[in-house]
Amino acid sequence: MKSKTEKKRPLILVTNDDGFSAAGLRKLIEVVRKIGKVVVVAGERPMSGQGHSITITTPLRIKTICKEPDYEEYVCNGTPVDCVKLGEQVIIKGKPDLLVSGINHGSNASINVIYSGTMAAVLEACIDFIPAIGFSLLDYGHDADFSHVDSIIESVVHKVLDEGLPNGVCLNVNIPAKSENPLQGVRVCRQAHARWIEEFDSRMDPRGGDYHWLTGKFENDDLAEETDQWALENNYVSVVPVQYDMTAYKAIDMVNNWNLSLNHI
Amino acid sequence: MKSKTEKKRPLILVTNDDGFSAAGLRKLIEVVRKIGKVVVVAGERPMSGQGHSITITTPLRIKTICKEPDYEEYVCNGTPVDCVKLGEQVIIKGKPDLLVSGINHGSNASINVIYSGTMAAVLEACIDFIPAIGFSLLDYGHDADFSHVDSIIESVVHKVLDEGLPNGVCLNVNIPAKSENPLQGVRVCRQAHARWIEEFDSRMDPRGGDYHWLTGKFENDDLAEETDQWALENNYVSVVPVQYDMTAYKAIDMVNNWNLSLNHI
Repeated sequence: MKSKTEKKRPLILVTNDDGFSAAGLRKLIEVVRKIGKVVVVAGERPMSGQGHSITITTPLRIKTICKEPDYEEYVCNGTPVDCVKLGEQVIIKGKPDLLVSGINHGSNASINVIYSGTMAAVLEACIDFIPAIGFSLLDYGHDADFSHVDSIIESVVHKVLDEGLPNGVCLNVNIPAKSENPLQGVRVCRQAHARWIEEFDSRMDPRGGDYHWLTGKFENDDLAEETDQWALENNYVSVVPVQYDMTAYKAIDMVNNWNLSLNHI
Repeated sequence: MKSKTEKKRPLILVTNDDGFSAAGLRKLIEVVRKIGKVVVVAGERPMSGQGHSITITTPLRIKTICKEPDYEEYVCNGTPVDCVKLGEQVIIKGKPDLLVSGINHGSNASINVIYSGTMAAVLEACIDFIPAIGFSLLDYGHDADFSHVDSIIESVVHKVLDEGLPNGVCLNVNIPAKSENPLQGVRVCRQAHARWIEEFDSRMDPRGGDYHWLTGKFENDDLAEETDQWALENNYVSVVPVQYDMTAYKAIDMVNNWNLSLNHI
């Protein structure tokens, strides 16, 4: 008779958008290898800010880094979304039990979800009805300190493996940077309505040509306690359930009342 | 005394994801120049499938193509989202009255909204509270026939300029390809829960290396009459109000009931 602990280990697909060498990916691999069989498919290069990009005009190539019974690792020349597609179709040739992405170096809370390659990978798995979680740490540094994240990741991963997620729903988990203040707990939140105010840094090159570096500052007027921004600013881990259905249902009646027709009058 | 027709012409920012030379962009420019003062900022190259990408590791450059009192046109080396940011911050140095994107060569209905550079530009303007509309034609061809779209675009653009859109809501308009069957009308819809099933075309190069082309087929199990896919398959123009708040509100209670904590037990 099999005990509960002898049940089949789940197959976990891991990717990120900071590339295969990122410390955040290495930490995520370390944690989920304790839980299941792991297949890593990561990009050769950092792909931050790539949103839901896919590679359609150049061919994709995969390199095998290691292939052991319980652990496989591959790198490819694609985006985070490509990594998920290749992982499912070419490497696993089926669906993993879970997709985890990250740990991103930097916040994917609030409006960042829409620019994030980390969360694009999560949404891509979600579209295929694979339970999926994105993890991000609020520390952009290459040398970010991930020493406080293990139990949070284990906790969320075990819950999702045990409980599942509804079709069309995935999770966006953001973790405050390591500090002297202890974490206050975990809060389930909605996405704050914050945004980036662009500030292009415009310069002139040695030949007299103008060029512009994209920079910006984050602006949040949405201070409600149910938001991910509030949670993070108050040293809580934020968990936002995310969906890829972007329909603004509340606006359907309004647009219907416009009585749009084929002929402009 | 000014008559209604003498009121100030609106400032309309135009972009797309097929690049500055695309026939769909040229048609969109032609239609909106009848309505307002127009500033075009388009990419040098096609950017299909670029999702909500932004350019952060290389500098952005802008070339002025033409600058007349009522019409300006620029190309840049960025993504559709970069085009909107540069248009607002560097070129207009303020907010246009409207952003229109497209006309995309190919559908952005259903799940395509999430991969679409055309709709990413629309969402980017929406984040800045600029009324924004994406237009797409269900014809991928370079030589797609746009001869039936003028009055539809005029109709939607005039309505949005007159009525406005709620903050955080933009429009995704898809138009059936030109055919012998007349269009049936305009339907306000929700995004269908369809998806792409990947089918990588895997090959070997002359040196014996494997490579993979991303291909796929579109699969739609969501046949409800309120969806954009139903509308388009029945020769209606589909109009989906879209939002960038991706919170799955219906799942918040469920995840709350998990009682996630910092310490995995």
